[in-house]
Amino acid sequence: MTAPVRIALDAMGGDHGPETVLAGAEISLGRHPDIAFVLYGEESRVREALKSHPKLAAAARIVHTEVVVGMDDKPSQALRRGRYKSSMWRAIDAVKTRDADAAVSAGNTGALMAMANFNLRTMPGISRPAIAAIWPTLRGETVVLDVGASIGATAKSLVEMAVMGSAMARVLFDIESPTVGLLNVGVEEMKGVEEVKEAARILREDGMPVNYHGFVEGNDIGAGTVDVVVTEGFAGNIALKTAEGTAKQLASYLRSAMGRTLRARIGYLLARDAFRVLREKMDPRRSNGGVFLGLNGIVIKSHGGTDAEGFAAAVDLAYDMVRHELLARIEKSLGRLHPPATPVRETQAAGAEGQS
Amino acid sequence: MTAPVRIALDAMGGDHGPETVLAGAEISLGRHPDIAFVLYGEESRVREALKSHPKLAAAARIVHTEVVVGMDDKPSQALRRGRYKSSMWRAIDAVKTRDADAAVSAGNTGALMAMANFNLRTMPGISRPAIAAIWPTLRGETVVLDVGASIGATAKSLVEMAVMGSAMARVLFDIESPTVGLLNVGVEEMKGVEEVKEAARILREDGMPVNYHGFVEGNDIGAGTVDVVVTEGFAGNIALKTAEGTAKQLASYLRSAMGRTLRARIGYLLARDAFRVLREKMDPRRSNGGVFLGLNGIVIKSHGGTDAEGFAAAVDLAYDMVRHELLARIEKSLGRLHPPATPVRETQAAGAEGQS
Repeated sequence: MTAPVRIALDAMGGDHGPETVLAGAEISLGRHPDIAFVLYGEESRVREALKSHPKLAAAARIVHTEVVVGMDDKPSQALRRGRYKSSMWRAIDAVKTRDADAAVSAGNTGALMAMANFNLRTMPGISRPAIAAIWPTLRGETVVLDVGASIGATAKSLVEMAVMGSAMARVLFDIESPTVGLLNVGVEEMKGVEEVKEAARILREDGMPVNYHGFVEGNDIGAGTVDVVVTEGFAGNIALKTAEGTAKQLASYLRSAMGRTLRARIGYLLARDAFRVLREKMDPRRSNGGVFLGLNGIVIKSHGGTDAEGFAAAVDLAYDMVRHELLARIEKSLGRLHPPATPVRETQAAGAEGQS
Repeated sequence: MTAPVRIALDAMGGDHGPETVLAGAEISLGRHPDIAFVLYGEESRVREALKSHPKLAAAARIVHTEVVVGMDDKPSQALRRGRYKSSMWRAIDAVKTRDADAAVSAGNTGALMAMANFNLRTMPGISRPAIAAIWPTLRGETVVLDVGASIGATAKSLVEMAVMGSAMARVLFDIESPTVGLLNVGVEEMKGVEEVKEAARILREDGMPVNYHGFVEGNDIGAGTVDVVVTEGFAGNIALKTAEGTAKQLASYLRSAMGRTLRARIGYLLARDAFRVLREKMDPRRSNGGVFLGLNGIVIKSHGGTDAEGFAAAVDLAYDMVRHELLARIEKSLGRLHPPATPVRETQAAGAEGQS
């Protein structure tokens, strides 16, 4: 029997507090009975909320914390007030001390990234962490990164992201050699900033641990042209939010069209199974969860406003990343990206084995 | 009676050639009988296509050109091969020589921008041109710029874009004081690049000819939070293409859901008027046409792959921009942005009158 997957939850994070976090954890536990939870939060509140989740209670222990990081706290504020003692920090710290295999929080992104970065530090060979989102597409799903960990990116960090995103896609989609595209604009001769061009040049080199497809444009994300889309955090965040906004807008158009006439309403009733399928396809909760990549530990960010189903998806994601050894896969690929500077016989052999 | 609006058409531009361009021009002429067209293209082909459009023929003259700019020509190539003699160049040149009030082309964006920039030059006080798109939103429409004229933007050029976008929104939406947002990312303390922050600081100054709303995020575009969204061309192009991709994706989900079962298909038939309304709302042809802003002349880029209806929308746009004096409005606002360096009594008075 394999060891349980130990997941540390920031029980106080998110807009709806422990009730949603625990309800979500219990849903995910139903799908993955081999999870053991550690719940960080205000003990009395967490214990109270746990009463309605007896199955979860049997698979969880509570660690009391005093401080809650606010949804609007600035990262520096959160670090100052919440370091060592907030539910968010302690959940991350459990990953560092190996008391947990992954941490999940629905708390504020900036604070979570600042604390995770400060406490876990970046992996050797990684300049800075990125946030990866899972984007539903016409062909399935695509990993998109960075969606907002930092602004701007050097060619080197775009290449690192390509490596990390590939590892994540391997875990998620169970494919050996996921295709990677660099997000760019489609106007000839102004095609992209220098960093993007330079990253493309590097990714085309022999022996890169990345199946590089080429440049992709904004519309390629939803089309599912590649398995991994790499971009810097400003454009990535804007792409993600723009797609969310467009989906909301079209759902609103659809609702109002279907309520317009009696015939449309009857048609809607007849087709309601189809609309249910559509709604599920468009359900943002299904792809809830941003994965922090490049740190010495697995941290998942859930949307703050999500419900129990959405939080459960984030916990599922943490589970998958641990079970399929995301970090080991990233490290392996990074080893091929940065071979040792002074190769000796053994490392040469290891390097050669790593080539594809 | 007012003078006609003279529109120069690149009859050879686009994926479908003169047939689509002329059919579109005739549709727009039906809505605006006071347009006079000049058609630049290969005379025999244009004359042949014109036979099926007698109304347009009565309102148009043909100017023969030998060279056609290819849809895949690089801007430098297009300039080398097509300067002085291509249909694209001549249509732009007609604006410069005041033989036309605006030019419309469905040819390739990079070549069109390079030629327009080279021939018309930027307006005094404008560092570089931008491409503005009209974005359908939940509350109506929003002007979004830059969607791909150049990559990166200084604070100064973001402010110029805010001014130009406001002038365009005034023309389009007939509102006195359109609201302007700077596109940014929503993560605290990494909020935006320095240029965006600096542009925000300038836009908040007294006496700016812009109704500055603040930062907006990607999802605010579709929500219609502001009338004008300003960003640099890389992020803007990615946002635009991402939204197009998302709309296509959801339309495809909807189609497949509605064909799934017999009940769904019957429901679809009953609600088909509602679906027609929805299709019209989502019709990308309705908002076809990118406006080149910041040049000494009005140039409109139509999508290359659009049909006659789509091209007609681009011609309508050109018409509106001329009739409502876009350039004069931009100049007026720029005058308030850059008051004369050594004010004399008269210009001081003009400046004061310009304050809001």
